[in-house]
Amino acid sequence: MMNQKAFQDYYPDELSHCYGCGRLNEHGLKIKSYWDGQEAVAVLDPKPYHIGIPGYVYGGLIASVIDCHCIGTASAAALRAEGRNIETSNPLRFVTASLHVDYLRPTPIGIPLVIRASIKEIKGRKVVVEATVSAKNEVCARGQVVAVQMPEQMKPTGGIA
Amino acid sequence: MMNQKAFQDYYPDELSHCYGCGRLNEHGLKIKSYWDGQEAVAVLDPKPYHIGIPGYVYGGLIASVIDCHCIGTASAAALRAEGRNIETSNPLRFVTASLHVDYLRPTPIGIPLVIRASIKEIKGRKVVVEATVSAKNEVCARGQVVAVQMPEQMKPTGGIA
Repeated sequence: MMNQKAFQDYYPDELSHCYGCGRLNEHGLKIKSYWDGQEAVAVLDPKPYHIGIPGYVYGGLIASVIDCHCIGTASAAALRAEGRNIETSNPLRFVTASLHVDYLRPTPIGIPLVIRASIKEIKGRKVVVEATVSAKNEVCARGQVVAVQMPEQMKPTGGIA
Repeated sequence: MMNQKAFQDYYPDELSHCYGCGRLNEHGLKIKSYWDGQEAVAVLDPKPYHIGIPGYVYGGLIASVIDCHCIGTASAAALRAEGRNIETSNPLRFVTASLHVDYLRPTPIGIPLVIRASIKEIKGRKVVVEATVSAKNEVCARGQVVAVQMPEQMKPTGGIA
């Protein structure tokens, strides 16, 4: 999987500064998402300091990985639904309209988290994506993101620091 | 306000390592929450790299501040509802059962964010908290957290690194 390019690797430079998934954000989490059949998968190894209470992953980090992974999946799924190839198409960049996370059980730290997303709905500029976050094959959190295609006026014009 | 102790300052050391609000997490955001009448308020100045796209705050950071601010508010409100004084009582530490965020408009970076929380419901070990995140007096995001008092088996026994 890691030999493929991730969805986020196709974002243009000016949209690659996201703290969660931007390849150009040197402080960020650099979340990377890939197709795995009809699902999309990302793996994140939290840092030791990404804890809520000792031993367990911080809930805000879990919300963050769900957010970026679902947004990346929305982008790739919208292209796929149009029959376009991610390799050769202009990317469709999405933003988050809403994010919901249910924390089902404490998520242990020190184990790579596997985030799996699937498309619930694509309708016009909106994509609804569902996700699970698992540690050692146990689902610890479930999330849902409503993603909408980025409004034109939000798009940076490039050349940012 | 900053002369007061924040809700999080009353957490015992072993529960003060949270990446979002732990005073002992040197890598973390150190979110601090205070009463302001019936509401609780926190102010956070995101770092320049806490962006989603250039110019705008990362949605995962917004989710994180809502989470920690609401959890801190749940803790303080549960004490207050029992007529106990935060100065002299054992803290009631809560964890997040669910988190919901609606992103209403892009949140500009470079401006301190003001997070205001109010209690929607207190029922047994559960507290429901609502929050807004504003920049320059404009509400950019709304959130809701369902907080539950931490189960005994999650409590660390102290002495962690």
